Amino acid sequence: MFRELHRSTHSPARIGELVTPHGVVRTPTFVAVATRASVKGVEPAALAGLGLELLIANTYHLHMRPGEDVVASLGGLHGFSGWRGPTMTDSGGFQVFSLGAGKEHGVGKVAPIFPGESDATPAALAGRDGPPLVRLSEAGAWFRSVVDGSEHTFTPESVITIERKLGADIILPLDECTSPLHDYGYTRAAMERTHRWARRALEAFQLLADDPTFPNPGQELYGIVQGGAYEDLRRESTDVIGEMDFAGFAIGGSLGRSKDDMWRVLDWTIPSLPQDKPRHLLGIGEIEDIFAAVSRGVDTFDCAAPTRMARNGSVFLRDAPRHRIHLRNAAFRLDDRPIDPGCDCPTCAQHSRAYLQHLCRSGELSYYRLATLHNLRFMARLMDEIREAIAADRLETLAKEWGFHLT
Amino acid sequence: MFRELHRSTHSPARIGELVTPHGVVRTPTFVAVATRASVKGVEPAALAGLGLELLIANTYHLHMRPGEDVVASLGGLHGFSGWRGPTMTDSGGFQVFSLGAGKEHGVGKVAPIFPGESDATPAALAGRDGPPLVRLSEAGAWFRSVVDGSEHTFTPESVITIERKLGADIILPLDECTSPLHDYGYTRAAMERTHRWARRALEAFQLLADDPTFPNPGQELYGIVQGGAYEDLRRESTDVIGEMDFAGFAIGGSLGRSKDDMWRVLDWTIPSLPQDKPRHLLGIGEIEDIFAAVSRGVDTFDCAAPTRMARNGSVFLRDAPRHRIHLRNAAFRLDDRPIDPGCDCPTCAQHSRAYLQHLCRSGELSYYRLATLHNLRFMARLMDEIREAIAADRLETLAKEWGFHLT
Repeated sequence: MFRELHRSTHSPARIGELVTPHGVVRTPTFVAVATRASVKGVEPAALAGLGLELLIANTYHLHMRPGEDVVASLGGLHGFSGWRGPTMTDSGGFQVFSLGAGKEHGVGKVAPIFPGESDATPAALAGRDGPPLVRLSEAGAWFRSVVDGSEHTFTPESVITIERKLGADIILPLDECTSPLHDYGYTRAAMERTHRWARRALEAFQLLADDPTFPNPGQELYGIVQGGAYEDLRRESTDVIGEMDFAGFAIGGSLGRSKDDMWRVLDWTIPSLPQDKPRHLLGIGEIEDIFAAVSRGVDTFDCAAPTRMARNGSVFLRDAPRHRIHLRNAAFRLDDRPIDPGCDCPTCAQHSRAYLQHLCRSGELSYYRLATLHNLRFMARLMDEIREAIAADRLETLAKEWGFHLT
Repeated sequence: MFRELHRSTHSPARIGELVTPHGVVRTPTFVAVATRASVKGVEPAALAGLGLELLIANTYHLHMRPGEDVVASLGGLHGFSGWRGPTMTDSGGFQVFSLGAGKEHGVGKVAPIFPGESDATPAALAGRDGPPLVRLSEAGAWFRSVVDGSEHTFTPESVITIERKLGADIILPLDECTSPLHDYGYTRAAMERTHRWARRALEAFQLLADDPTFPNPGQELYGIVQGGAYEDLRRESTDVIGEMDFAGFAIGGSLGRSKDDMWRVLDWTIPSLPQDKPRHLLGIGEIEDIFAAVSRGVDTFDCAAPTRMARNGSVFLRDAPRHRIHLRNAAFRLDDRPIDPGCDCPTCAQHSRAYLQHLCRSGELSYYRLATLHNLRFMARLMDEIREAIAADRLETLAKEWGFHLT
């Protein structure tokens, strides 16, 4: 359930509260990625202390290991992981497509391409050989595990059952994630199928509503808007999905090839979504993107970048170029300052850049946690600032202080 | 400085206090291994809460990266790592030999073998090709880095300077670690050279005593007893090293080929060492070994096994066979109990075996920390029990309760 508390006088930016069976989330908020029911490098008990309020785990990965029945028998994601706060699950659609065909075909985040099923550009087909790892049909997605070769089928209905067993507070339906390489025709067909899948998912969800045999009967289901970077498709998808009885809406799929494309997609979708429902932006979270998305009315967004960057040696520092420093840089070899002298995270309270550089260069396991704690705390503090700025109708000013110009 | 507080009426087992510039260590104690100034997987701030009182870092590794000058300029190991408690440094002799020749020759923990310098069995020479990575002479050890090919020389004097800069509370001199494959003649020659190196190290140490330009002027230097598994050599080494003005004594090198060999080495050495000085056993720490060593008067011992086992999935549980369970075992797939319901570590307070199995199988970084915390806390609690048992003159009874018969 979502409550809007204040809307900016200058933009669709707003602050609100997402009320879930496991607590209230203040929005806008950054959603930390816990793909396998664990934020990489950080134990669940440390997360709340960082100011994080919402995690997103992944249905595909948890289905593959340990399996939703294991998670359900341990009390759902909350009982299983020990994280007692609000949680989402991504439907796994993106993984079926990108981990399957994307990996096989060497096309990164590009959606699956099969003979007769795709009209992607030839570039996207380069490098493919052997049988496909994923096949799509009206029924759903068939795929072969890259881990052990086992075969799996995801249907809109089966994914809802899996997510009911996982027990996150907010769940997402199976969708097809198209790529910027897909042309209009393919993107339209995929979108229309995603709409039909959305309707089936919603029916399956309602059928299992309030079933006490699942660990978290109070779950809510969001719809996902698709349509790639095509204006009429995004507008159509917004209308179709927006009319269905979802508790909130996610914006998924390809957002084009540039940040400007991304903002346009938000401009085509958010204004037409039900204003009383929360909006989630899938997989986006650079600092600049956050300001742009929030100013367009995005309430929540998840992104693996802050944690992945930390593991690679990039840690956030507001006053540095691009708001980050790279700990491997020789300049920090003897630097006895914390990453950010103004930061209140456990890492900055205890450790110097020089020590962190040493741990990072040595590949010490303790490094990953320490750097991740800092970057996550940075995101939580950034969101505190953003919420305060919206409340004071000064988001544009804050963005400028951070070096961004909101358009 | 060491204070014996109570000696068992049945054995040389004793409890005492090691007084260092960074605090008091209750002995006997388990020394956690922090090779690169970090216990693998656990940030320094979490260690004291586990009841750990003494860490051992490694001179060789820290010399190679980040270099002792970096550590010194950050305030020595204490300032550098943020661990404020008592600390030791191993001299790096073992690493020069085993990481150099051992790796090159594929002989594991076997000491270096060079034409004209060794009479090891032919088996130990198998697989060697190319130039040696280590050469030994009366002056010291020359070696080539396996990381970047750079050349380094360790002399007894240079190692003391490095350790002065690292600033641990207890430091060890350069020694040569022989292997069970070395024969009597080689072992004797290596021992005699180690004795000459010990005298040079002591002189270098005294020359730099109380020099306030080093981060920890109150350091103490231990001597290392060598001599392999040969009784007369061990007795001779004990006499020679024991007469030098060291603050304590470590028992190093080959301890033979069986646990019985190991106990014999302790029986040949400890009774003849100065009774008012502390004794450290290098690199030993299986539970059975701990009881046997403590009952023979060992005060401190370091071992990487508890942390390495944790990372591999083996976690301690007193009532299990061999006092451990393997978290990857399918039996724990749905097990909602903590590793040890009687354990007070943060991991057992928060997480089930099922969740830990999932993290372990998934290779999640958070797994390593959680499992390591448990195993380290287990060691700290074991040492609490052992100290209490010695105080009550019932160490033999405690050993029996753990399934061991002290001989």
